[in-house]
Amino acid sequence: MIDNPFYSPEAHGPYEYFELGDFELEEGQTLRGAKLAYRTHGELSAAKDNAILITTWFSGTHAIFDEVYVGEGHALDPAKYFIVIVNQIGNGLSTSPHNTDGPFAMGRFPHVRIGDDVRAQEQLLREQFGIERLELVTGGSMGAQQSYEWAVRFPDKVRRAAPMAGTAKNTPHDFLWVQTLMDAITSDPAFRDGYYTDGAEVRLGLARHALLWSVMGFSTEFFRSEAWRGAGFTSLEDFQVGFVEAYFGVMDPNALLCMAWKWQRGDVSRHTDGDLAAALGRITAKVFVIPIDEDMFFPPRDCAAEEALIPDSELRVVNTVGGHLGLFGLEPAYMEQIDRHLGELLAAGG
Amino acid sequence: MIDNPFYSPEAHGPYEYFELGDFELEEGQTLRGAKLAYRTHGELSAAKDNAILITTWFSGTHAIFDEVYVGEGHALDPAKYFIVIVNQIGNGLSTSPHNTDGPFAMGRFPHVRIGDDVRAQEQLLREQFGIERLELVTGGSMGAQQSYEWAVRFPDKVRRAAPMAGTAKNTPHDFLWVQTLMDAITSDPAFRDGYYTDGAEVRLGLARHALLWSVMGFSTEFFRSEAWRGAGFTSLEDFQVGFVEAYFGVMDPNALLCMAWKWQRGDVSRHTDGDLAAALGRITAKVFVIPIDEDMFFPPRDCAAEEALIPDSELRVVNTVGGHLGLFGLEPAYMEQIDRHLGELLAAGG
Repeated sequence: MIDNPFYSPEAHGPYEYFELGDFELEEGQTLRGAKLAYRTHGELSAAKDNAILITTWFSGTHAIFDEVYVGEGHALDPAKYFIVIVNQIGNGLSTSPHNTDGPFAMGRFPHVRIGDDVRAQEQLLREQFGIERLELVTGGSMGAQQSYEWAVRFPDKVRRAAPMAGTAKNTPHDFLWVQTLMDAITSDPAFRDGYYTDGAEVRLGLARHALLWSVMGFSTEFFRSEAWRGAGFTSLEDFQVGFVEAYFGVMDPNALLCMAWKWQRGDVSRHTDGDLAAALGRITAKVFVIPIDEDMFFPPRDCAAEEALIPDSELRVVNTVGGHLGLFGLEPAYMEQIDRHLGELLAAGG
Repeated sequence: MIDNPFYSPEAHGPYEYFELGDFELEEGQTLRGAKLAYRTHGELSAAKDNAILITTWFSGTHAIFDEVYVGEGHALDPAKYFIVIVNQIGNGLSTSPHNTDGPFAMGRFPHVRIGDDVRAQEQLLREQFGIERLELVTGGSMGAQQSYEWAVRFPDKVRRAAPMAGTAKNTPHDFLWVQTLMDAITSDPAFRDGYYTDGAEVRLGLARHALLWSVMGFSTEFFRSEAWRGAGFTSLEDFQVGFVEAYFGVMDPNALLCMAWKWQRGDVSRHTDGDLAAALGRITAKVFVIPIDEDMFFPPRDCAAEEALIPDSELRVVNTVGGHLGLFGLEPAYMEQIDRHLGELLAAGG
């Protein structure tokens, strides 16, 4: 166990824990005494028919949704919906390499799959709140992977799904790109096969990992237009060090690797012997597939190909020079688009 | 000095050397006894009015042009033109870190700029062949940077220019992407600040560098469509190891770093106090700007913005799922497009 102050209510605002117990993973190992960290907004109706699940992305937690996506004036409005944001396994707040005791800590933390997260989330919603059906499941990037997994694995439990900037089956290109992220960290001699004593020791690997995010995470236009000035930075290096490196630099390297391995293998066609059309054809939810136009690794082309395989679906492309990391919602025009799409989806019968 | 068998006529076919002498670089240092390795095709006309210069890209040499771009049936036809392909400084065949003696070898090889290459090439063409004017200068990627530099620095010496898949002024995004390439190599402990005894010692850094090329060098569609099967590979890993890693793995790490530093700083506006419009406005050559539609780091958008600043120019976008590395010409449809554009440019008055 490592005491990393980043993974705390001080850094993320309030959250609660759900005890999963001993949770068997798809890869065969068991997370003993596993926990999910989650945050709720709003009130669950007596009929339990106003629940929305939000799933988290790589490196993300519930906090970004608290701050950017959920609230009065947004489609995800706590005055109307009971909103549950669940931190994915391995993200540092839920059970993760650095907060695990015993032989499976740190460099020996088991491999976790998107399906594990979705099963754990279903258990949380059912056992803690008695929720049997979701009005909406949504999330970005790895959160989209979880949203798709929900819609395919539990078709009767999902009325609507809005996967943003992500795919149902990860692409080979995306696999390679995530591998570069992992290599940036594991190639740092200070990583020591995951047995560092403080994540900050791996700062050079984390910095290289952060630089890769700048190259692939935004867009060429983001940098050409110096859009980072809008966030108060005064030069490219100022932004790279002060924002991108700073963002990742406080995180646990093993946590990032746990999520990265999971991300590489997101694939709903595991339910249908590799037949993606059959898997997506099982979806009964109304689905808005929401790619970002400038996304360099979940390009609209790949998202559109999946959307075409989903019975009751629409493609809703969002425009932002933020690229994939437009998900952070730094641009007001981004959230306006998201709110419009999610609002229309929630207003539609599902 | 390191004896690297990759940098030899056995690996690259025949070439000749031009002695530059002591060549002072823009950054202030001097390459003593510098040489340019070059290859010619065809015969220089008596009037010396049929010369074409081809410049090389990052990691490239004259060989790829011998094999793919130059020959009977191509626009670059030795039956009509005297074609000179010049290896850029630092590419391993021309003066480079590993083939330099004395204090400036290896990790102390001086920084070289695009302008240094172009001045050296001008000296070669003038002193060796008496060529005062080029019918065409062309090249891809860093070769495009050199082509632009020629057209801006020596407007009276360039009738036509065809920069392919590259920019006149490198973009901030491109700078960051190239930095990830450099970091992949320099972060390998075996790199030892450039003082390895054999480039192959840096194989892990070179492999990470190769993986980055796969992510950014091709296109998402290249991998989705498994276009690598066309080159005889049987799996993604087979391709990654057997082609991409193998391609870079034989090269000298310091050579790649020399070219990368140069690439990051390509900028014709150095001639005009940073005013890109003024620099490109100086071009008198007829220019076909030839980006590749799927290029992830020299996207058509950036190339089109520069094209708009060049007086006598056209934008000719080439389509290939090969992305930036479509430049290798693995797709027949790619070379057909290039030949058409270059053929039309050569047929036009300049």
